Amino acid sequence: MGTDSGQDLGGTTRRQLLTRIGMLGGTAALYQAMTSMAHAAETQFAGPPKLSGAKPGASVIVLGAGLAGMLAAYELNKAGYAVKILEYQNRAGGRNWSLYGGDTYTELGGATQHVKFAPGNYLNPGPWRIPHHHRTLLHYCKAFGVALEPFIQFNHNAYAHNVDAFGGKPQRFKALAADFEGNVAELLGKAIDQKALDAQLTAEDRDRLKEALRDWGMLDKDMRYVKGLKSSGHRGYDRPPGGGVNGAPIPSEPFKLDDILNSRIWTNIAFFMNDEMQTTMFQPVGGMGMIGKAFARQVEPMLNYGAKVTRIRQDKKGVTVTYSDMNSSGTVKSGHADYVVCTIPLGILNQIDINVSPEMREAISAVPYSGQVKMGLEMKRRFWEEDAAIYGGHSFTSQDIALISYPNYNFFKDGPAVLLGAFANGLGAYRLAGMTPDERIEAALAQGAVFHPESYRKEFLSGASVAWSRVPWTLGCCARWSEEARKAHYQNLVAVNDRIVLAGEHASYVGCWMEGALLSSIDAITRLHKRASEA
Amino acid sequence: MGTDSGQDLGGTTRRQLLTRIGMLGGTAALYQAMTSMAHAAETQFAGPPKLSGAKPGASVIVLGAGLAGMLAAYELNKAGYAVKILEYQNRAGGRNWSLYGGDTYTELGGATQHVKFAPGNYLNPGPWRIPHHHRTLLHYCKAFGVALEPFIQFNHNAYAHNVDAFGGKPQRFKALAADFEGNVAELLGKAIDQKALDAQLTAEDRDRLKEALRDWGMLDKDMRYVKGLKSSGHRGYDRPPGGGVNGAPIPSEPFKLDDILNSRIWTNIAFFMNDEMQTTMFQPVGGMGMIGKAFARQVEPMLNYGAKVTRIRQDKKGVTVTYSDMNSSGTVKSGHADYVVCTIPLGILNQIDINVSPEMREAISAVPYSGQVKMGLEMKRRFWEEDAAIYGGHSFTSQDIALISYPNYNFFKDGPAVLLGAFANGLGAYRLAGMTPDERIEAALAQGAVFHPESYRKEFLSGASVAWSRVPWTLGCCARWSEEARKAHYQNLVAVNDRIVLAGEHASYVGCWMEGALLSSIDAITRLHKRASEA
Repeated sequence: MGTDSGQDLGGTTRRQLLTRIGMLGGTAALYQAMTSMAHAAETQFAGPPKLSGAKPGASVIVLGAGLAGMLAAYELNKAGYAVKILEYQNRAGGRNWSLYGGDTYTELGGATQHVKFAPGNYLNPGPWRIPHHHRTLLHYCKAFGVALEPFIQFNHNAYAHNVDAFGGKPQRFKALAADFEGNVAELLGKAIDQKALDAQLTAEDRDRLKEALRDWGMLDKDMRYVKGLKSSGHRGYDRPPGGGVNGAPIPSEPFKLDDILNSRIWTNIAFFMNDEMQTTMFQPVGGMGMIGKAFARQVEPMLNYGAKVTRIRQDKKGVTVTYSDMNSSGTVKSGHADYVVCTIPLGILNQIDINVSPEMREAISAVPYSGQVKMGLEMKRRFWEEDAAIYGGHSFTSQDIALISYPNYNFFKDGPAVLLGAFANGLGAYRLAGMTPDERIEAALAQGAVFHPESYRKEFLSGASVAWSRVPWTLGCCARWSEEARKAHYQNLVAVNDRIVLAGEHASYVGCWMEGALLSSIDAITRLHKRASEA
Repeated sequence: MGTDSGQDLGGTTRRQLLTRIGMLGGTAALYQAMTSMAHAAETQFAGPPKLSGAKPGASVIVLGAGLAGMLAAYELNKAGYAVKILEYQNRAGGRNWSLYGGDTYTELGGATQHVKFAPGNYLNPGPWRIPHHHRTLLHYCKAFGVALEPFIQFNHNAYAHNVDAFGGKPQRFKALAADFEGNVAELLGKAIDQKALDAQLTAEDRDRLKEALRDWGMLDKDMRYVKGLKSSGHRGYDRPPGGGVNGAPIPSEPFKLDDILNSRIWTNIAFFMNDEMQTTMFQPVGGMGMIGKAFARQVEPMLNYGAKVTRIRQDKKGVTVTYSDMNSSGTVKSGHADYVVCTIPLGILNQIDINVSPEMREAISAVPYSGQVKMGLEMKRRFWEEDAAIYGGHSFTSQDIALISYPNYNFFKDGPAVLLGAFANGLGAYRLAGMTPDERIEAALAQGAVFHPESYRKEFLSGASVAWSRVPWTLGCCARWSEEARKAHYQNLVAVNDRIVLAGEHASYVGCWMEGALLSSIDAITRLHKRASEA
């Protein structure tokens, strides 16, 4: 790890040197060089692909108008290929998608929801936040004119709730985190004093570590984590500091270790240290779907909607894609091109007749998809801001909904606002997906009310839900590779198979993120272009 | 701590009950009730003061048009008092202040700076961030139409630098924090295994704590913090996850405990857990000075600029304030009113002839002021965003400048942007204040370049600095009460002294924050109004 840039290397800046190494030796050499120069590797993105010189008349059909597909189309078209995109829906963007008032959504099973949110409010059923190190996505957002605003990921003042702790009462994250750290610090200090770590630590390190524990854990001079202004300085006060005659603060009582352990607060603390969850994060102004719309504007002439692909056959002369045109009563049509970039989610692709190698076929069927459930709940007013001083961020719970998340736009505004009322995974998502949309909303209200009992039902206006296992065009949210499946199938999935290459978040190690879809797409088209150039 | 609201209490919501307790028993009773109801006490703000019924013809002179003074004027005027504000500067807002291109600032000693920033860019010499629990300030920002936007306080990807660690090389906060936590977790796990804590912990707690340490500290199955994908998931990778053929991540090597201790990273980790530094934070769109301007619009007719107060005399009939009108060649003038609310900073007030009690006089001279130095450096481009993926937040250093902070507005924008190049305290501030403005900029460039060596000087355009010990109208930044001074003098300072009451951040326990000034002002005028009503 290091600074963002280096000293002058004989008239060459580190940046220039790295660029040169990258051009000469490719990505692997570049990363080796960056690492040996202690450069913080933030991303595998090295700028947009520099493809050019497609053979005259060379053509590509891109399957799927999600971000991976549209990026492939955009860059291949720039390189000189004739490109056509076939998209099943009548909307580009794929899982990059926002639901607004007036929108209608029909899930598998036939339930249709009519979204009733006020103008400007939305639910992002799929992606909803952009890490600062997702440089590919940030690059194209800027290039395609997508305005971004901060996504408040980390909020000390939001709640954490575990049904097994504090009699089911939520507590503020800051208080639980402070108490967890205070207890850990006190216990480690005791262990040092009892000489339990003399084999591991020098005398000097023991002294420095004790100083660190005292400052970090807000311990008193005797290395105890106790009620007082010091610990309240992290966990919060019974009466906070104020002005005038009654200005003096009154400290709060720390929780007992047993309660802290029951809360499992460390899972939340660790969550925020997760590389993909670290601050600073962003979201598009107006909803995540703005990104899909911006990409679509770039590839507008290549887009063909309502195309349900049923068959993909390649031979020595090219690839033929057969599809039903859903906007023309299902008329069977076909397209032909030299190459295909297929970004269709694996659960759908697995049902399509495609002649690729047995290894790729096996890989396509080897990757399970997760089935998250997200819900938007529109409330009459921002009671979480007005009453609870919570501006953005998440309140986590051990219940099925997993969390509620507060909107990061229009802070302080009067009038209706949309909360994320659930972001369920695993068993919780399975249970919620099994309900009707109305039942889901009822469950989300019942569970989310634990955080704001006085207001949650009273202020509720309307809701919308997307259970990804019931989304007709993906049959799941995103690829969840196991370690074993990676070993057996990943390289077979991403390899160029004669005239066909797959792309999407499923063909990446950044699964479930837009960045994975884009990095996969760049890698896939770079290899396809190389293959096409050598053909 | 608890949820923001309570269950129904016999037909009365907790909010209603608390309001009633507050009205009957005052603030102290309210806080006792809130605490016993496990309500998270976020603030001493209980809504704007409800003053009314000033005696006909009753008058107040407010000294100082900072936030405390303008709020006092606004609320007392609403209550029926005839109010006049005397302000030394030709600008309202006081320390709530932004410097823009075209502004000129002359410090004590005579050095004048002409600010050259591009339109829209600014330096906030004084306050620059608003905690979510500063409810008084947030209330009036909304009431007076000040647009707020998120202030990125916490950025995992910013740097930490200590001259004694890593050969003087900065490291990313995330890597240092992850390694500190990983080492603490591993060591505490070892101590538990060595039965050093069997007296403190039950067997069940030991097991649960070990599980917690494993998850929180990213330890392997043998409870060791080692190089691997798990620890890299917090500290960052040598090659991060990507897409396609080379998508697999390559883990990074954790730092040695000795280096982590040298970095003193725990001070930064603890900083972010400080109650006043916790997320979510805000800033006004367009610069902090927008708040002072908004307050000024509310009290416009009462404002009198260029008034240098020299004498404040109270007797049985009222208070006479003598001042030089600096906008009229220093002509000596005087004003007379029934009461005075004095918000003049103590270092200035201490030099003014004022007949208050000996106890208040002593209190006025008992409180030292801090002398922070802040600097704005305009750079040609946002290299911290473009090259280092740092969007807002702070990079801390053990050098005099203490930190550099990245702008939280116009993210991703091309063209010049202003970094906070220093926020120095203590000895560092003393040294920087002793320099000429040009020397300060040179020092800030030399020290700040440690974070962005390739770009810092190359991209520099112009700078501005404010050394608060040299600010003519405050002679310091803000009050720094010692515990002893609090005991001896605080109540004497805030007590209504016949017809005079003091207000400002110095008359609060939220020193150096705008919230302290406002809470102090509300408390002071509430007591003054009571005294006036009883007179």
